[in-house]
Amino acid sequence: MKNFSPKILVVGTGAIGSLYGAKLAQAGAEVSVLCRSDYELVKKQGISVKSHWGDLHFTPKEVLREVSEYKEKADFILVATKVLPDVSVPYLIRPAMSQNTSVILIQNGIFIEKEIAEAFPNNNLISTIAFVDVIKDGAGSIIHAGDGRLTFGNYRNPNAEKIEQLIALCNKVEMPCKYVEDIQLERWKKLLWNASFNPISVIAGGLNTKEILDNILVKNLVRDVMYEVALLAKAQGYEISTDFIDDTISLTHTRKSPARTSMLLDFEAGRKMEVGAILGNVLEFAKEKSIATPYLSTLHALISCY
Amino acid sequence: MKNFSPKILVVGTGAIGSLYGAKLAQAGAEVSVLCRSDYELVKKQGISVKSHWGDLHFTPKEVLREVSEYKEKADFILVATKVLPDVSVPYLIRPAMSQNTSVILIQNGIFIEKEIAEAFPNNNLISTIAFVDVIKDGAGSIIHAGDGRLTFGNYRNPNAEKIEQLIALCNKVEMPCKYVEDIQLERWKKLLWNASFNPISVIAGGLNTKEILDNILVKNLVRDVMYEVALLAKAQGYEISTDFIDDTISLTHTRKSPARTSMLLDFEAGRKMEVGAILGNVLEFAKEKSIATPYLSTLHALISCY
Repeated sequence: MKNFSPKILVVGTGAIGSLYGAKLAQAGAEVSVLCRSDYELVKKQGISVKSHWGDLHFTPKEVLREVSEYKEKADFILVATKVLPDVSVPYLIRPAMSQNTSVILIQNGIFIEKEIAEAFPNNNLISTIAFVDVIKDGAGSIIHAGDGRLTFGNYRNPNAEKIEQLIALCNKVEMPCKYVEDIQLERWKKLLWNASFNPISVIAGGLNTKEILDNILVKNLVRDVMYEVALLAKAQGYEISTDFIDDTISLTHTRKSPARTSMLLDFEAGRKMEVGAILGNVLEFAKEKSIATPYLSTLHALISCY
Repeated sequence: MKNFSPKILVVGTGAIGSLYGAKLAQAGAEVSVLCRSDYELVKKQGISVKSHWGDLHFTPKEVLREVSEYKEKADFILVATKVLPDVSVPYLIRPAMSQNTSVILIQNGIFIEKEIAEAFPNNNLISTIAFVDVIKDGAGSIIHAGDGRLTFGNYRNPNAEKIEQLIALCNKVEMPCKYVEDIQLERWKKLLWNASFNPISVIAGGLNTKEILDNILVKNLVRDVMYEVALLAKAQGYEISTDFIDDTISLTHTRKSPARTSMLLDFEAGRKMEVGAILGNVLEFAKEKSIATPYLSTLHALISCY
């Protein structure tokens, strides 16, 4: 490996960005962070990470208020902002982008890579899915309670060396990760879960995954939503089996600690929810393909009231 | 008219039962009431009715704790209980039923007459729909803010004389009413409204009709639910036009004072909601007919969490 100390800029230093920034720094990367709301505190104290992988303290190389302050050429820009209509990632990261910069996009939802791919058509774009239970419990402090595996895939302009570097860094700190040839299939699979549990958890009045699945009517609704997502995946050429759907439901039902979805956490904290990434985009796709989506449309309409 | 002073027993002396009991008494009927929760107060003070038709005070002929205490032979039993799984109307009214007793069933929902028709197969059963905005604002006190028209139809064992008597009483106090040959069509039409606005008002977080229809996504959902109800009506031989659906939505949207649905009022007051009458029964019918109901099933699942 030529470069075991790549320069990484984390944009979006919430729970996810902080966790993976901290781990990559622990693995030896030079990690700087864009951190606007907690700038003063993070600059002074860094970020405290309570993790089931072992607690650690993360002192970023640089703490920035604006990406334009970044003095390096980033090897990677790790984007972990929420997917919201008022956040333009290309605008945000442009000042730090160079020809050799890879974008690692760790975000929820589907069809979320398009804007970045169009804005930086020649850059390597690594679309990444995090299966992780991590929350920010205060300024400069996060709690990582469960899971954490990253799934990487090349979305545009594959660069084998960059993926190898990333995986080497993860391995160095024993952070579980995998590389997949087709990240879009993984996005569809994760969307099964997100498009059902996320809105239902809010609309049903604030339920965790166990409460949702203990109600047989709602469990059936979860399954119907998942079938609808699978039908849309199929329209894009991705086959998701009934078995996979059943397994997803049953693994969610039997997990040790019931999950409160990210949408529910956002709603309860008065933050904006990622409705577009999780429902809006896929409904646009369905419309293009003229596929009826009664379940997803109903959830989309109802969540829009929250 | 042979009998202008029929004996009427009101079972279920909530807002609806109190209003129509009071009006029928004003028209000259001998109206007694079954009144359990507010027995003492109603026995002492009667029921105060604030109405846009003119305020009135209703002193029932008898106030009963149990139907078995009723000493008369009722010409009519007006049933205005809520439709809940734990309320058995046949059990409740049996002690006062005689051969000549007509049951006036003023209740929400669809397929709600069956139980009574089966329990009293030889009695005249007048299925009745009330379009009314009336609330109980305390023990022995109701406020009737809008509408009030009754629609009568014979469900079983038609009795022209009884219907004439009822309509004469209504006319006497200028209470709007009409008789229809086929009450089931009216029930389907009212179900359009009930099956959409009622659950959505609760699930969307406590919205009135204007708030529901001001959100274009939710307005579309309302329309989709109505189409689904119309499809089920068609399976029973009842044609409901697209124009009727559009008019129902637009009249609801433009009414002077936005409505808070009965389900929302029940939910907010911690009372049970009429989920079975408004969604459960029609979903059973859909199942019998093997008709897919993604919209109604989704609302049913979500409202079951409240």
